[in-house]
Amino acid sequence: MIGVGFMGKAHSNAWRQVNHFFPELPAKVEITVICGRESAATERARGIFGWDRAETDWRKVVAAPDIDIVDIGTGNDTHCEMALAALAAGKAVMCEKPLARDLAEARQMLVAARRAGAVHMVCHNYRRIPAVALARQMIEAGELGGSIRHFHARYAQDWLVNPNFPMTWRLQKKLAGSGAHGDINAHIIDLGRYLIGEFKEVCGMMETFVKERPWPEANDSSARTAAAKKGKVTVDDAVSFIGRFANGAMASLEATRYGLGRKNHIAFEINGDQGSLYFDFEDMNRLKFYSANSAAGHKGFTDIIVTDREAHPYMRHWWPPGHLLGYEHTFIHTFADFIQAVVDGIPVQPTFLDGARCMAVMEAVADSSARRKWARVPSVK
Amino acid sequence: MIGVGFMGKAHSNAWRQVNHFFPELPAKVEITVICGRESAATERARGIFGWDRAETDWRKVVAAPDIDIVDIGTGNDTHCEMALAALAAGKAVMCEKPLARDLAEARQMLVAARRAGAVHMVCHNYRRIPAVALARQMIEAGELGGSIRHFHARYAQDWLVNPNFPMTWRLQKKLAGSGAHGDINAHIIDLGRYLIGEFKEVCGMMETFVKERPWPEANDSSARTAAAKKGKVTVDDAVSFIGRFANGAMASLEATRYGLGRKNHIAFEINGDQGSLYFDFEDMNRLKFYSANSAAGHKGFTDIIVTDREAHPYMRHWWPPGHLLGYEHTFIHTFADFIQAVVDGIPVQPTFLDGARCMAVMEAVADSSARRKWARVPSVK
Amino acid sequence: MIGVGFMGKAHSNAWRQVNHFFPELPAKVEITVICGRESAATERARGIFGWDRAETDWRKVVAAPDIDIVDIGTGNDTHCEMALAALAAGKAVMCEKPLARDLAEARQMLVAARRAGAVHMVCHNYRRIPAVALARQMIEAGELGGSIRHFHARYAQDWLVNPNFPMTWRLQKKLAGSGAHGDINAHIIDLGRYLIGEFKEVCGMMETFVKERPWPEANDSSARTAAAKKGKVTVDDAVSFIGRFANGAMASLEATRYGLGRKNHIAFEINGDQGSLYFDFEDMNRLKFYSANSAAGHKGFTDIIVTDREAHPYMRHWWPPGHLLGYEHTFIHTFADFIQAVVDGIPVQPTFLDGARCMAVMEAVADSSARRKWARVPSVK
Amino acid sequence: MIGVGFMGKAHSNAWRQVNHFFPELPAKVEITVICGRESAATERARGIFGWDRAETDWRKVVAAPDIDIVDIGTGNDTHCEMALAALAAGKAVMCEKPLARDLAEARQMLVAARRAGAVHMVCHNYRRIPAVALARQMIEAGELGGSIRHFHARYAQDWLVNPNFPMTWRLQKKLAGSGAHGDINAHIIDLGRYLIGEFKEVCGMMETFVKERPWPEANDSSARTAAAKKGKVTVDDAVSFIGRFANGAMASLEATRYGLGRKNHIAFEINGDQGSLYFDFEDMNRLKFYSANSAAGHKGFTDIIVTDREAHPYMRHWWPPGHLLGYEHTFIHTFADFIQAVVDGIPVQPTFLDGARCMAVMEAVADSSARRKWARVPSVK
Repeated sequence: MIGVGFMGKAHSNAWRQVNHFFPELPAKVEITVICGRESAATERARGIFGWDRAETDWRKVVAAPDIDIVDIGTGNDTHCEMALAALAAGKAVMCEKPLARDLAEARQMLVAARRAGAVHMVCHNYRRIPAVALARQMIEAGELGGSIRHFHARYAQDWLVNPNFPMTWRLQKKLAGSGAHGDINAHIIDLGRYLIGEFKEVCGMMETFVKERPWPEANDSSARTAAAKKGKVTVDDAVSFIGRFANGAMASLEATRYGLGRKNHIAFEINGDQGSLYFDFEDMNRLKFYSANSAAGHKGFTDIIVTDREAHPYMRHWWPPGHLLGYEHTFIHTFADFIQAVVDGIPVQPTFLDGARCMAVMEAVADSSARRKWARVPSVK
Repeated sequence: MIGVGFMGKAHSNAWRQVNHFFPELPAKVEITVICGRESAATERARGIFGWDRAETDWRKVVAAPDIDIVDIGTGNDTHCEMALAALAAGKAVMCEKPLARDLAEARQMLVAARRAGAVHMVCHNYRRIPAVALARQMIEAGELGGSIRHFHARYAQDWLVNPNFPMTWRLQKKLAGSGAHGDINAHIIDLGRYLIGEFKEVCGMMETFVKERPWPEANDSSARTAAAKKGKVTVDDAVSFIGRFANGAMASLEATRYGLGRKNHIAFEINGDQGSLYFDFEDMNRLKFYSANSAAGHKGFTDIIVTDREAHPYMRHWWPPGHLLGYEHTFIHTFADFIQAVVDGIPVQPTFLDGARCMAVMEAVADSSARRKWARVPSVK
Repeated sequence: MIGVGFMGKAHSNAWRQVNHFFPELPAKVEITVICGRESAATERARGIFGWDRAETDWRKVVAAPDIDIVDIGTGNDTHCEMALAALAAGKAVMCEKPLARDLAEARQMLVAARRAGAVHMVCHNYRRIPAVALARQMIEAGELGGSIRHFHARYAQDWLVNPNFPMTWRLQKKLAGSGAHGDINAHIIDLGRYLIGEFKEVCGMMETFVKERPWPEANDSSARTAAAKKGKVTVDDAVSFIGRFANGAMASLEATRYGLGRKNHIAFEINGDQGSLYFDFEDMNRLKFYSANSAAGHKGFTDIIVTDREAHPYMRHWWPPGHLLGYEHTFIHTFADFIQAVVDGIPVQPTFLDGARCMAVMEAVADSSARRKWARVPSVK
Repeated sequence: MIGVGFMGKAHSNAWRQVNHFFPELPAKVEITVICGRESAATERARGIFGWDRAETDWRKVVAAPDIDIVDIGTGNDTHCEMALAALAAGKAVMCEKPLARDLAEARQMLVAARRAGAVHMVCHNYRRIPAVALARQMIEAGELGGSIRHFHARYAQDWLVNPNFPMTWRLQKKLAGSGAHGDINAHIIDLGRYLIGEFKEVCGMMETFVKERPWPEANDSSARTAAAKKGKVTVDDAVSFIGRFANGAMASLEATRYGLGRKNHIAFEINGDQGSLYFDFEDMNRLKFYSANSAAGHKGFTDIIVTDREAHPYMRHWWPPGHLLGYEHTFIHTFADFIQAVVDGIPVQPTFLDGARCMAVMEAVADSSARRKWARVPSVK
């Protein structure tokens, strides 16, 4: 495990938990090494998260002979280099999203993964929310009909609304690649691809509402001049785009860190000619389904609590109906499928191809925004 | 129309509107006389509500030869006397709920209505909320199954929470008969009877949280002593009861004027062995329906927006789907059915028998509360 | 009243009702003439809706000396001609939205209205939903803060999802001007202007999912050839656009007749730096408000039931709290304000200037869609 | 850990997880022994849940010198015996609810715990849902006002609706003590005590809707006669009661396994004279709060997503806002507080006194139901 922050915590938990809830998995995870840049913080994380060893040199980790799986949960600027090294060392690779800083890096990673023949996955964990997995099943079973008309999604958070919220690596282009775009728009683009299909063309706009932010207080004690006390925000605060899918559906997506009151509002609505779906992560155990085929007078959005052991994806591993799952369970489901694939030596979605195609859409949106024109989504094969 | 207050306004509107939205009715309503106690207020109401004449002597009204229908929308202490007179004069009678102050009065009215052979109705208007009428249809069609297990209802308002809210006739037993019990518990008891069947036995409790309240400011200018500035509340603030229906279903009902935040929260849930229903008047255009017969993985409460012209009761008279109805429409539906019945000379539910049976349940609850024991609901035939 | 269809019904009701609920208005509406194209249908409408006279020649109506107000509720292709004539005849004019077929017509109407000095209004009735009027009050009072970041709106209906739904005038460009764009997108554009301010630039896309539709059965009996049994849909089924307001807020709007399960879903969310609002017409009596200024731990969207007599716009004219209003009440509020303005001889929003500016946004969206580029919204003064 | 079923799984998880999310705890849990009746099942549970040793003789476990804490998660008929033994052996004791089969047993356990001076806790885990803990904080801070008027709660599940659902130990009085009463009514009674205070008197009814159920298929292969293929249900299916708290609040509670469509619907509403709260476990991350002190026109139930690191109980241990918690987190919170108390040697709520007082309310309800009268809640000190 490379990374000791938010994702380090969430991923560590999933590696620890996965065999306890998926006991039939063909392999038992050994929680070997966690790796971070700072020694003390990494050692602390090791202790708390339950790893055997702590390490500060990721190159040693990816080369370690007792390691089969490398999980990359670091900043976006390091994904490519680490993944290439891990793949070269013959490891299976799990990589946080977005796959890379740009499409070029993503293509490199895809090529390397194919060349290595290794099992690889990009951690778009929201695909394995049971409600989302159910949505996919329903669409595949034709329950929304033959024509999907709309994919309308919004991912809104609100942690940047206050202009005094301090600078972080997430607000610097050279470290993060982009802002809301790569951090959260990537998720709803991935959900669009997962549920509807490939995007064909897009037209978008990106905004940075607050151009400068104070550095964190820790830095204030330094001898900086007043001017240096603020840092320039070089990524987008919000991004909005419209577009078309290859199958003719219309797309309207928006991702923002300024959606005051919305904490982790990953909301999407899909309208087909036989059915519609609505989901909001802030009610992540529920899926709303409307069927045109319900009896007259009985039509409406059905509020499915997706916790049925027999009928709902992943739920037989958990609790009785109505006993809800939480955020981190999405990683457990993801890793369970990944482990099975690693043992079986077969691909598991979302692969780096998915990650790269998601990057292609993101790049088209960014390009469209910069040039103020429609952009075709580059093909990635 | 006798009564110029809240009900006078709501009923007048319905008489005025009914032919415009139910043009196929076999009779056209003429808005003849409105009657109140005070001359000036009645004349003002006449002008605003659109009646031809104003009158202050209700006996003249019920005897007037140009009147076919008498609508009683006055305080509960006058229903019986007025209804008897109107029936004796050969009029069709619409009477606000609760039908009377007590079961004895209600029985008298029932006998008189039968003797007169007149069309008569007690205005339990909530039966004709389209969502409630739909609930009834679904239950009759067996969609909740053969066994109803629970009727769980709560009618909560909050206008008495503030202990300085002044005294009104509604808080005096001699004028109102009871408090939350007759005013709002009557409604959910009626809905229980309408949707589930007859109550068999009950056990209840009634509370008066605030025992004294200030008289309205208007009276303060008088020469009252300080002591006289407060009046004694002689009715219940809240009533709660459990019980059994004749068909074996369990009943749990509560009516309160102290449900802070609840404005007109008439909420009920019905659980059968094949389906469940949930309704809340504060979302009066919606009915939530759960069917055990939905496909595996698709079960959940369906949020039916009850505004479909073809499929939903009364809706073909109104607007396209999703264009909601409001509170006063319930009276228009009630009066439309009443007018049809008056012309046809046939009974129309809820009759005075329904009103009397509702009073019988109410009396059993009050009796049970006073004596702190279970009470059997008296039979009314 | 010119028009006997859906709007004829809704407007007639409002003219009939307005004095009963707004008795303090300085004038009493006389329900004089209703005008339609077909004699029998108009006479039927007259009887049902309660007008004194029926007429089939609108030119006679606008010239009639006993008429002070002309209300235009006809197809979009006739608004301009009728309004010009009515204004020339010195009448006050109420006109259904969209104001005209295009911006050029709208400008003509605006010029004529100014020249005539007559009170005029475009019937964007949704502005006077109490919840929307409250939203406006809150924004004006600064409760959303100094910077609005997002206006995110979707108006979805679903009556065209079935490809066998027959052709109507609404699907023909020469009669309707546009499809979802003019019919429903106009409403959310108007709400954007009302609540946020002027749009600066837009980029949109329009789609016609189903290109041909069968003519209504009535026509099938004719001697048409098979080919002629289908008509070409010449308007948009759905429109989606992004854009910027002059004040820097981002806009994302979508209007569709293919939002299966959504009946009259006029949903918008506004995110400011101090507060957010959410509204959905399918819960039209509610407004959700999030304030960044609530106490720590107490923040969340507050579900305001907008039925408080003292505190909420228009509500003192209606019922006690929690007794909901319905769709047609929006017209009553609109006409109440209009009547007051006519008597006072002062302007009343939304004026033809508002109608024309709304058309300007619509035209920019359509233009942007046709040319696949961003478009600046033309200035209308 | 004694018990390998549903609670064995949930408790084991919490013991495993607690130090990872509460790293500041003064002790690190060692997952030593799990104990069940059947050797194979226990060994399987040991492996899956992550314990060091498996054991089938609980007496050995409670006596083991390397054990400090005994966690009793077995059937209700064994709680008392095991707890007495564990306390006698000087262990700290965590016991699943209901504390015992009856009040007499509960009193015995309370006496033993006091005599032992051991830290002890009854696992009413729902107290530590962050939303419920927040509710308690708000009530203690006076945000609901000085007078609580109503506690209205319903715990509904639906797993017994189908009359062919087979017999289990939960439906046999000698093993389970009671049905819905001890299993789920106990939870809402505990929440009533936790949030409002002590119950004073109650009047209840209990029903067994389906009197006989088939034995599980596993048994069908045996040589039973047809008659023996069904077992008698000797516990309640549903229980409903009304009552009064010592502080004057009215109580209305219902627990049922026949609430079709309700999976784990622990819903309560509390109405005070300054504020109201609403909670439903099926939306366990949310608390609805209404304050009479909000500004005019702004009042409504605020939908608090209880995931704020700084402001909400337990949340600083988890994820960013809007990243929801699930069911099993309630046990982790409970055990974290318990471990702290064990190390500190101080009591931690809910103690066996709480468990016994909950049993006292339950016994009064059962007694009231059997004798069809009101019953006073026995005092437990």
